[in-house]
Amino acid sequence: MHRAALHQQLAPEAWHLPGLSPSNKLICALILLASLAAILETEPTLRRLVPRLFSSLEVVFVTLFILEYLLRLYSVGEDPRYRGIGGRIRYVFSIWALIDLVAILPFFLGFLTHSNAFLLRLLRILRILRLSRLGRFSRAWSALAEALKARIHELLLSVGVAGLLLLFSSACLYVVEAADQPEAFGSVPRALWWSIATLTTVGYGDVTPITALGKVFAGMTAVAGIGIIAMPTGILAAAFSDAFQNKDNMQGE
Amino acid sequence: MHRAALHQQLAPEAWHLPGLSPSNKLICALILLASLAAILETEPTLRRLVPRLFSSLEVVFVTLFILEYLLRLYSVGEDPRYRGIGGRIRYVFSIWALIDLVAILPFFLGFLTHSNAFLLRLLRILRILRLSRLGRFSRAWSALAEALKARIHELLLSVGVAGLLLLFSSACLYVVEAADQPEAFGSVPRALWWSIATLTTVGYGDVTPITALGKVFAGMTAVAGIGIIAMPTGILAAAFSDAFQNKDNMQGE
Amino acid sequence: MHRAALHQQLAPEAWHLPGLSPSNKLICALILLASLAAILETEPTLRRLVPRLFSSLEVVFVTLFILEYLLRLYSVGEDPRYRGIGGRIRYVFSIWALIDLVAILPFFLGFLTHSNAFLLRLLRILRILRLSRLGRFSRAWSALAEALKARIHELLLSVGVAGLLLLFSSACLYVVEAADQPEAFGSVPRALWWSIATLTTVGYGDVTPITALGKVFAGMTAVAGIGIIAMPTGILAAAFSDAFQNKDNMQGE
Amino acid sequence: MHRAALHQQLAPEAWHLPGLSPSNKLICALILLASLAAILETEPTLRRLVPRLFSSLEVVFVTLFILEYLLRLYSVGEDPRYRGIGGRIRYVFSIWALIDLVAILPFFLGFLTHSNAFLLRLLRILRILRLSRLGRFSRAWSALAEALKARIHELLLSVGVAGLLLLFSSACLYVVEAADQPEAFGSVPRALWWSIATLTTVGYGDVTPITALGKVFAGMTAVAGIGIIAMPTGILAAAFSDAFQNKDNMQGE
Repeated sequence: MHRAALHQQLAPEAWHLPGLSPSNKLICALILLASLAAILETEPTLRRLVPRLFSSLEVVFVTLFILEYLLRLYSVGEDPRYRGIGGRIRYVFSIWALIDLVAILPFFLGFLTHSNAFLLRLLRILRILRLSRLGRFSRAWSALAEALKARIHELLLSVGVAGLLLLFSSACLYVVEAADQPEAFGSVPRALWWSIATLTTVGYGDVTPITALGKVFAGMTAVAGIGIIAMPTGILAAAFSDAFQNKDNMQGE
Repeated sequence: MHRAALHQQLAPEAWHLPGLSPSNKLICALILLASLAAILETEPTLRRLVPRLFSSLEVVFVTLFILEYLLRLYSVGEDPRYRGIGGRIRYVFSIWALIDLVAILPFFLGFLTHSNAFLLRLLRILRILRLSRLGRFSRAWSALAEALKARIHELLLSVGVAGLLLLFSSACLYVVEAADQPEAFGSVPRALWWSIATLTTVGYGDVTPITALGKVFAGMTAVAGIGIIAMPTGILAAAFSDAFQNKDNMQGE
Repeated sequence: MHRAALHQQLAPEAWHLPGLSPSNKLICALILLASLAAILETEPTLRRLVPRLFSSLEVVFVTLFILEYLLRLYSVGEDPRYRGIGGRIRYVFSIWALIDLVAILPFFLGFLTHSNAFLLRLLRILRILRLSRLGRFSRAWSALAEALKARIHELLLSVGVAGLLLLFSSACLYVVEAADQPEAFGSVPRALWWSIATLTTVGYGDVTPITALGKVFAGMTAVAGIGIIAMPTGILAAAFSDAFQNKDNMQGE
Repeated sequence: MHRAALHQQLAPEAWHLPGLSPSNKLICALILLASLAAILETEPTLRRLVPRLFSSLEVVFVTLFILEYLLRLYSVGEDPRYRGIGGRIRYVFSIWALIDLVAILPFFLGFLTHSNAFLLRLLRILRILRLSRLGRFSRAWSALAEALKARIHELLLSVGVAGLLLLFSSACLYVVEAADQPEAFGSVPRALWWSIATLTTVGYGDVTPITALGKVFAGMTAVAGIGIIAMPTGILAAAFSDAFQNKDNMQGE
């Protein structure tokens, strides 16, 4: 196979058709499979059931990822930025090549605890983001990103207001409930756990105020929580509405 | 009664007035009653109270549905696509006729367990969707479907982002909480249960993190949950806004 | 005081200035106070603390409401529809006069249980809706009502979809969890309680699935719950956006 | 340093460049640090770990805030409104100068209980709002405030409807559940705690109805809760959409 054809197959930005090249589709599928295996391997019941399956699978996946890494290293010479030995070294230290490396390394780092190795293996999913960047969703992505950027100050402002509400509601509950429930409301950082569960309307219910005044403040916090949801939703809705209309107008011209 | 009149009464697309024909209104009511009976029959208290009522009702409903099925089979000959013996066979294997059949069969399949028969009987509700397809809501339906279709990439993208968040938050909680709560966070699939309850802001509270670091990650997940709700809501609001305006403009011209 | 002046003071639609007349403002305040007293009276601690206060207050409120009722009956003669004896009888049986009567009667019906009398007394709050109908909020009210009416089919459709989701998710949980948790999921009506708490993202957590398959269905239900919130919110946002713009355009012309 | 330069540094409205002056940036950082210290000091574990750290830090912060207060008092003479002795007295009693004072005083009020002193120290955060008023977010702030003001009647109306729903749902649950759960539903004010948790979709689950009728009302309340969230979100979305478009139009001209 010619190096130019290989480069076209592997580099998403070099592919001449819309969507992903067949090789990159295969690699995406491999990454998803490897991630799924990494996720399932954490379940002790499955590990006991098929003790050798997951380590064998990992050997297969890592072998394929090493092969892919070497092919990328070879074919990237087609890109004028990474030509020659110096270019290859620059490529190895580029952000995406480092992430590609991270997808391989955990296998060789035997001294890692199980859960740390797991996190590194999960980073492989990030590689999909790179490969699919130029796929069918790039227009949708840019529309959403544009809308977010145009209203970033409004969104940050509502985040700031939410932060202040979070702080004041946990401070109120700390002052009111600390004496009765020292474990749950004995300090502001502890009350924050309750406060965040209430303002986001998650409401676990593992910690709830028991004094009358505490319940009054909690009720006000819960009502404020609706504002915390309504505010950014409203801003996003307005921002998306603008972004979609601008896009349609541009296409219409 | 003439076959043509019968066909007009039974086939929703053949009815000449807006809305449903009287026969189809009756059939819709029958389906709702039969579904209600199927639902209430699952309640042991009611089954003990009136042991024979539900089985007698089912005999009545199935008899009526068989009659309806045969009348449809007879009158569908008016439709050029299903004329003659061959046309009738084609009709029997069309998707809606099969669903009509599913509404009858559970009664004769005595070997089914109780709960399986129940699910098949609940499928009858799908028949209402078919009958009401051309009813008063078809314009509303097409407006919503159009809006969803126009922004399907943006919606899928936000689903993808939500999926990644789900995965990373459950992975974080697994790494942090597995040692303290092996039953609830002992693997990523187990932690997913907590993660989905938090990101959707349902927040059952049957499983909550107990370590300080776990609570920090959980708080971040809960805050991200607001984004998970705000994102698709904003996209839908913008999409509906566009769809309604386009419709109004078209009517205005 | 002249009957015409009295009529102007009492009938909200006869008042010549924007907002409420002084008399109706006073009556609104009285209604709010009477409702607050009715609410506080339900608390046993307060009833024990000041045993006679609430019954004395109720005597005062009912006396004033009787006075108001009689004055309305006298002054409504100014309205051409309710002139003369026959007109007064028509007035007594008009909807709002009946509600005014309901605000007085519970006091004289000694045979009512405590909690029934309470509900009737709470109906007094409805009177505020009538009195404030022509107040400052009437424009806002008509804008919102108009938007809801314009998109009523879309809203009903999303309610219908929500109802189907509710039914199918509780049916699934019934089939999967009935054997393990007969008390909570032993029938579809029982499973509905869990299903409604999950789809609305309330998530009490008093009942949660414990089987693996049950958790998978529950997770899907929780995700669908986001759609259940996003759908009507998006429709309302689009409908309000249209309604506000139409109003602004009409004012601009 | 000249008094004019000092005034420019300290008064946010006197600064000639966009954003905050270096001095005010430093003061903002100090306020955040002091607030963080006040928050962390409430945690008993940390107080035991480093017993003297927090009181020493507080001495440093208060010294710096006193210095800042005196410099502001000196330099405010540049402002024509606060010139001379009389102007300085007027300044001391202006709202922001009083808040500045509150940031200092708790330190000297030894008779305050710990938690009261904590609340006063948290008020310092309000000072950031003043300092950042003219910062980069002022345009976003005015856009949001304008949108809220334009639709204030619609928002208040939806708050009123929510209040009525809250009242009626807790009244229903009180009537239905009081006999079975006197502790949680024995009065309307007690039932309000459950009602607010349900209507805001927080759903702690510490109190849930147990009777069948109670569950039916609770289900209806939970469904109404979606409207409670959808209504203001929709209004805000429409209001922001209008506000952003008006702003863009004004810039375009």
